[in-house]
Amino acid sequence: MKYDTIIHNGIIVTVNSNFDIIIDGVICIKNGKIETVSPGPADRVAYQSENIIDARGGIIMPGLVNTHTHLPMTLLRGIADDLPLFEWLNDYIFPLEAKYMNSGNVRIASLLGCAEMLLSGTTTCCDGYFHEDSVAQAALETGIRGVFGQGVIDFTAPGVPDPADNIKTAGRYAEKWLNVSPLIRPSVFCHSPYTCSEVTLIKAKRITRSNNILFQIHTAETKNEYDMIMSKHGVSPVRYLQKTGILDEMTILVHSVWTDEDDIRIISEHGSKISHNPQSNMKLASGIAPVPEFLKNRITVGLGTDGCASNNDPDLFKEMDVAAKIHKVNLLDPTVMDAGTVIQMA
Amino acid sequence: MKYDTIIHNGIIVTVNSNFDIIIDGVICIKNGKIETVSPGPADRVAYQSENIIDARGGIIMPGLVNTHTHLPMTLLRGIADDLPLFEWLNDYIFPLEAKYMNSGNVRIASLLGCAEMLLSGTTTCCDGYFHEDSVAQAALETGIRGVFGQGVIDFTAPGVPDPADNIKTAGRYAEKWLNVSPLIRPSVFCHSPYTCSEVTLIKAKRITRSNNILFQIHTAETKNEYDMIMSKHGVSPVRYLQKTGILDEMTILVHSVWTDEDDIRIISEHGSKISHNPQSNMKLASGIAPVPEFLKNRITVGLGTDGCASNNDPDLFKEMDVAAKIHKVNLLDPTVMDAGTVIQMA
Repeated sequence: MKYDTIIHNGIIVTVNSNFDIIIDGVICIKNGKIETVSPGPADRVAYQSENIIDARGGIIMPGLVNTHTHLPMTLLRGIADDLPLFEWLNDYIFPLEAKYMNSGNVRIASLLGCAEMLLSGTTTCCDGYFHEDSVAQAALETGIRGVFGQGVIDFTAPGVPDPADNIKTAGRYAEKWLNVSPLIRPSVFCHSPYTCSEVTLIKAKRITRSNNILFQIHTAETKNEYDMIMSKHGVSPVRYLQKTGILDEMTILVHSVWTDEDDIRIISEHGSKISHNPQSNMKLASGIAPVPEFLKNRITVGLGTDGCASNNDPDLFKEMDVAAKIHKVNLLDPTVMDAGTVIQMA
Repeated sequence: MKYDTIIHNGIIVTVNSNFDIIIDGVICIKNGKIETVSPGPADRVAYQSENIIDARGGIIMPGLVNTHTHLPMTLLRGIADDLPLFEWLNDYIFPLEAKYMNSGNVRIASLLGCAEMLLSGTTTCCDGYFHEDSVAQAALETGIRGVFGQGVIDFTAPGVPDPADNIKTAGRYAEKWLNVSPLIRPSVFCHSPYTCSEVTLIKAKRITRSNNILFQIHTAETKNEYDMIMSKHGVSPVRYLQKTGILDEMTILVHSVWTDEDDIRIISEHGSKISHNPQSNMKLASGIAPVPEFLKNRITVGLGTDGCASNNDPDLFKEMDVAAKIHKVNLLDPTVMDAGTVIQMA
């Protein structure tokens, strides 16, 4: 028995640099690693493994990566629709989170979220929430791979009754999860430039730098946010984060809808990554991020579903479908965001 | 046994004028008609029927109506992506249709399309294609209800080798299907103002008027079409159709993306209906139809999926999802196209 597992009779979408697609392909796995990806031998007898999986003509492709979600929000799905972001957050989401999001509910909601992701082809996610301990625990139980960021915000939040403790809580969380499992990577998730002070942002970034982990932040999501930051700091949200020293290769800017040429150049120069969440941006009427411009400027862009309250599900195939279409209609150009580009983003 | 069928244990979305939602509802059916819709009695013994269906907590709602599709295009799904409408039509769709779309393939493709619609909650559709005889036949076999329009276009088409015969073919088709089944209503589907001459449009409309059946036409789908009609006739596509005498209450204008205030007023005054196909308009980068304006002007707007080549499936739940989101982000207003409005359109 040469291989641990052989998967055959599938259409392999390699997502390699040539975007090779192998009809009737075979994948041979040994010691948890893919050893060969090739067209199948005519004769099934040639397979050197006892564990042979028949893909029955289905598609075999790399696991999808959801670059932005809030797993526990499966419990808040459909709770408040047809509302703008600030009203949605302040009048519905934040009060409900304060009331119901204890560590037990967060774990249960996260288990559901992980199951929904795994069932729709996502094997890796980047999450940010409060009680993130319970989220990471749920992920560990389901076997999903991911980056799990403890939430930081300058007001009372689930599990952080006193905002003065938010940085300490995030630091403790990060240290606790650093070496628990190769599948779990801790992170810090600052909610946004308008809910975290400059001092909070700097301290949070310090935790991520010293542990070499990811820093996540909602950035330039709505026109409203853009106007707030502009009037308070005199610059765009992206430029404000640059001035604050947040931007580097280990920072994920989520949304980045309200970004101009200058912002895009800055993001590119600092090597920061962007998580694009088109369905959430549509549902909350935030706007359409200039993703084709990001890509032209060699910024790494991943797809995210956002939480179930603003999407309403963590299915990346649906997100790919919408991502492929929204930029076409926005630019009246059906050649942008072709299928290959979208699959690479996912 | 008082009722033929009783459906219980479901959440009934009535879609009545109050949008009443009945939790744990019961529906009683007699002689093929719904007699009562009400909250369920506590005691199941009270049900006066031998045919009792347990909805198991699911949603019970009116069947969805797909107001624009091309059923046989299930065979052309995914055939040409990331292309503009004219290139997509002329270089891929039209040649493939000419080569493969005979009556046998149309029937098989339509059976698949009907099955996909029924499985995703659609019980009524409005179709337009060539070899429409075979489409109507397939619909009859699956039991779906619908309007089936024979295609009319001023060049060689599947089943109509000589375009000089297109009106005669449509007329014969309409008469044949007028009284075949209460589930099937014939119709004439003129492809568009740019592929049918004024004479063709007038003759086709005459067939539908004399038989009191629907007239369907793709209208103002792309900027390119708008420019062509404007340069040839000096008016917008909608105004051109008005001048030609096509607009009345029995006309469905499909897409109507490139319409201004004047066009919208004209459509409203003539009582013509609009089929909104947001996913197709996104995929082909046609544009975003001003649906909130249509609704403000009391125009009846229904949802359509378009054919599987430009969507890529006939699932109206996905179409509702996108319709609810695309207008929010387009107008940066999350209060437009609320859930109730979208469900009513479907």
